[in-house]
Amino acid sequence: MREVRCVLVGLGNLGRRFCEIMIEKDHLLRERYGLALRLVGAADSRGAAYDEEGLRLPTLVKLKRDGLSAGRYPGRGRLGWQAVDLVSSVDADILLEASPVNLAQGGEPGLSCVRTALKKGMHVATANKGPLVLAFSELHELARVHGVKLRYDGTVAGGLAAINYGCRDLRGAEIHRIEAVPNLVTGYIMDMLAEGTPWQEAIETARAEGVLEADASWDLDGWDAAAKLVILANAVLGTAFKLEDVQRAGIRDVSVDALREAVAHGERYRLVARAERLRDGHYVLSVKPVALAPIHPLGSLGRKQMGVVYATDIFGTVALVINEPNPVPSSATLLRDLLEIYLGDDLCPPPFCPGVV
Amino acid sequence: MREVRCVLVGLGNLGRRFCEIMIEKDHLLRERYGLALRLVGAADSRGAAYDEEGLRLPTLVKLKRDGLSAGRYPGRGRLGWQAVDLVSSVDADILLEASPVNLAQGGEPGLSCVRTALKKGMHVATANKGPLVLAFSELHELARVHGVKLRYDGTVAGGLAAINYGCRDLRGAEIHRIEAVPNLVTGYIMDMLAEGTPWQEAIETARAEGVLEADASWDLDGWDAAAKLVILANAVLGTAFKLEDVQRAGIRDVSVDALREAVAHGERYRLVARAERLRDGHYVLSVKPVALAPIHPLGSLGRKQMGVVYATDIFGTVALVINEPNPVPSSATLLRDLLEIYLGDDLCPPPFCPGVV
Repeated sequence: MREVRCVLVGLGNLGRRFCEIMIEKDHLLRERYGLALRLVGAADSRGAAYDEEGLRLPTLVKLKRDGLSAGRYPGRGRLGWQAVDLVSSVDADILLEASPVNLAQGGEPGLSCVRTALKKGMHVATANKGPLVLAFSELHELARVHGVKLRYDGTVAGGLAAINYGCRDLRGAEIHRIEAVPNLVTGYIMDMLAEGTPWQEAIETARAEGVLEADASWDLDGWDAAAKLVILANAVLGTAFKLEDVQRAGIRDVSVDALREAVAHGERYRLVARAERLRDGHYVLSVKPVALAPIHPLGSLGRKQMGVVYATDIFGTVALVINEPNPVPSSATLLRDLLEIYLGDDLCPPPFCPGVV
Repeated sequence: MREVRCVLVGLGNLGRRFCEIMIEKDHLLRERYGLALRLVGAADSRGAAYDEEGLRLPTLVKLKRDGLSAGRYPGRGRLGWQAVDLVSSVDADILLEASPVNLAQGGEPGLSCVRTALKKGMHVATANKGPLVLAFSELHELARVHGVKLRYDGTVAGGLAAINYGCRDLRGAEIHRIEAVPNLVTGYIMDMLAEGTPWQEAIETARAEGVLEADASWDLDGWDAAAKLVILANAVLGTAFKLEDVQRAGIRDVSVDALREAVAHGERYRLVARAERLRDGHYVLSVKPVALAPIHPLGSLGRKQMGVVYATDIFGTVALVINEPNPVPSSATLLRDLLEIYLGDDLCPPPFCPGVV
């Protein structure tokens, strides 16, 4: 049995659910992969907890469900303990990072946590776009220098392994075009507008359902889609794009007439993120609302569906679509990354489920 | 620069195209991954050629385009030289296997070539379902014992990385259901029947276009889909199914009325391969024609499209679809497997295209 000592930063929707996944999957991970995960540290914005013997996950989950900080963890928690201080002081193997994007605060605390972890030789799995958008090359270089792995499959299109597919399964190809619908709420809002819901009401509905970010501009003005596109392009195409390189249009300026006309033609508006290869081999990145025909691989996406299309020279055109009715798949990407880090390309030596014949 | 000495068995549609891909991608593989592929041996059903300095790919491609055997390769070819003898006698790093399925002949010559290669410590990448269907566990065990890798992503759904996604990106999940449309020609024939083409004419059209196997029963009676399902299930679910475990129905018994009625309802018949998880954790495998609604993730597949759906507990429901207008993507899977074997989980250390910014 191989033990993996984990530190988890960020205990919101993703982080707390990840704790629940750790509980649920403990037996399977031991049986199937010989891995025993031990959560030795956990931090949220108000405090942190550390126990080298392992924090009790149900206790932590209950604290978070009750709206309390990990800093209140009995005996081992400290209110006001900063995430980055936790990461720098603890003895652990991997940082699981699920704190908010926070581009306005320079990607903090995520960026410092990731930097600190990589520098001290910890692997990093992060679902947080902030650090990757702001310091893509720097973080990869840190990982290389310190001989550890940096994985971030959950930063794009939720639980869909869009980055993994592009990075691994398209090796050797020239990619003519990447087209993605990586943001759920903009499609939902445009659908509501097309159905006659007034703008303000559509926004409030999305907010009430908890699918619109607190800073609505992040979604509505295409920042979220642009951030995901930058990460996806840099990871898959080997480029070095920044957020400001994306030609970006949000959904505020789409007319209700255009939305209705699209529906009348059987089309559906989605905020499409696109990387297009030019003749000279350079790529152009854009985010804008596009009316997609039903025949388009992303033209039938429902409210809870995201997708990515890769058009390539030797691997055909591939569409990957996920139906994600809740945030579990996004949260589970931390587990996917962790398993990839520890199992590498050791693809399920069969039979991995001896009981299943 | 790392050199990889390859032996290629099977120089039909897939094998010859793979030679063309090797020519086309030589520069990119050197530049991007530091890999230099050298084809030292090649065999078809009539002969083989070997040159430790490397065979000239354009010469080999021309021979095959002219309908001649590799045994006629100038100076280095021998007519009547068997593939398995080539594999056992040469000094090489990897076997690329693209010979026909040949279940009736016990999966030969593919199975013996794969066994021989693994036993002498060569990696194997194969696009041939035969060996995997007949000896899935044995071949994996051989690879393990001899410390080499066995990859076969091209055996299911052409150029779609369906096996890779299932094996790697769903690690940690319980898979409730796999649903696949892995065979092109049965869908094409059912579309023609629904449009009023008589059975015999539809069969002849498919045959004339070269999309129907010489042994039509392989496609029409669902053997091809069943073989792919067995490989997919065993690889992804860790099961040990055999071909005879699949509940199999081909397309011969679908009535034209049923096909027309489906179209009238906006549905489309496809030969669907399915692995369904029972409450006790066991799986049931089936292949049968199913009318798919447009809302189904595989319900809008066109003539040249294949797809796989994974319904999971923690990674949502994912649909992967490929549009494959020609056999290049299927052929390129040998390159995907080879790169996976040599690069492992070393995901594109960016920037891998220094010229692309």
